[in-house]
Amino acid sequence: MSEDLPKLAVIGGTGDLGGGLARRWAAAGYPVVIGSRGQEKADLAADDIRNEVGGRVEGMENAAAAAAADIVVLTVPFASQKPNLEAIREGLQGKILLDATVPLVPPKVARVQLPEAGSAALEAKKIVGEGVTVVSAFQNVGAAHLRDEHPIETDVLVTGEGVEAREAVIALVEAAGMRGWHAGPLSNAVVAEGLTSVLIGINRRYKIDGAGLRITGFQGTSE
Amino acid sequence: MSEDLPKLAVIGGTGDLGGGLARRWAAAGYPVVIGSRGQEKADLAADDIRNEVGGRVEGMENAAAAAAADIVVLTVPFASQKPNLEAIREGLQGKILLDATVPLVPPKVARVQLPEAGSAALEAKKIVGEGVTVVSAFQNVGAAHLRDEHPIETDVLVTGEGVEAREAVIALVEAAGMRGWHAGPLSNAVVAEGLTSVLIGINRRYKIDGAGLRITGFQGTSE
Repeated sequence: MSEDLPKLAVIGGTGDLGGGLARRWAAAGYPVVIGSRGQEKADLAADDIRNEVGGRVEGMENAAAAAAADIVVLTVPFASQKPNLEAIREGLQGKILLDATVPLVPPKVARVQLPEAGSAALEAKKIVGEGVTVVSAFQNVGAAHLRDEHPIETDVLVTGEGVEAREAVIALVEAAGMRGWHAGPLSNAVVAEGLTSVLIGINRRYKIDGAGLRITGFQGTSE
Repeated sequence: MSEDLPKLAVIGGTGDLGGGLARRWAAAGYPVVIGSRGQEKADLAADDIRNEVGGRVEGMENAAAAAAADIVVLTVPFASQKPNLEAIREGLQGKILLDATVPLVPPKVARVQLPEAGSAALEAKKIVGEGVTVVSAFQNVGAAHLRDEHPIETDVLVTGEGVEAREAVIALVEAAGMRGWHAGPLSNAVVAEGLTSVLIGINRRYKIDGAGLRITGFQGTSE
């Protein structure tokens, strides 16, 4: 059945968020390439996931990973977004880039501090250019919870360039065990990105482990 | 018991959101002044609320309403924010301004389009100046649902200048039957403001009547 599933590259796939998503996608049958700066680190992370959940997982250096995949997922800290995108730009052309970057600016990470383009997603668009379809998601997912088996207590706002590309990403959100919502054009990514700072502040003030959000009011059923 | 409750002025209190909040606050025992551009319209709206829920409700022109109150609530369309704030600025000094403005730019109201200052809340701050403590809330509340008796299916993100002022507003959120959350400094208001456009888009695409949000993960209890 999984022959038709797109091949995913996870740039930053050795980190908590990227590794957690990669594990869930591999478990769901997607072919996954773990991208890292070094081949060895990528191989180790891929081995770990294969040993845990099975599936088709391999490791590659970032540029090769992006070139090998159908959909490329970027899960790196804000400060690493630009160099990583520049390194993989060539392999991205004609594909969907799923950017999960949150523009946190330490030390005040509970304060919304937006980059010049208005959001990290729009910064990504500036870097990768018109040949890449940019979609933005997963900013509000607590990476720690991706390792748990239980359902994750957050919905995922999916913004991006066009309904079709967002649909493809919503399928990935669901494969990772969450509910994804069409949240509008890429310029709306500012909401999910800023919400991460709000949720960090809520975690601290209310002593919550992994605050998230749910969209309510769905077609008459409410939670 | 209600002698200690602050007196509230609702500028735009003849509209759906302002009128709905004023009704709930009056029912909760708060003294409420309905502000409008004309005395007669303000009186009529105040009479309506008094007839429905009782309480201490009066009508005044906007500037007089702001001057008479302890906390001033602005519930007007984005295009009316600036002229209204300029009209009441004098009466606001030394008080809390609770701004509920959402910077929707028709016709593309499902697209986040932020004003020059970064958010409507920061625009308000520029207009009213340092002598006013600005707090921002209620951007995601569907006005239509305020008339219903049942609990409203949305949480309220409260951003603003200082914990104490946010606490005062969270008390108003709870008096209106909703859960309010400390969501950080006024610069974080961009999240709640932008979220309104996201929710409008979700209402349309998923045919929901009044999509809202819930913060999940509260101290180990999850919904």
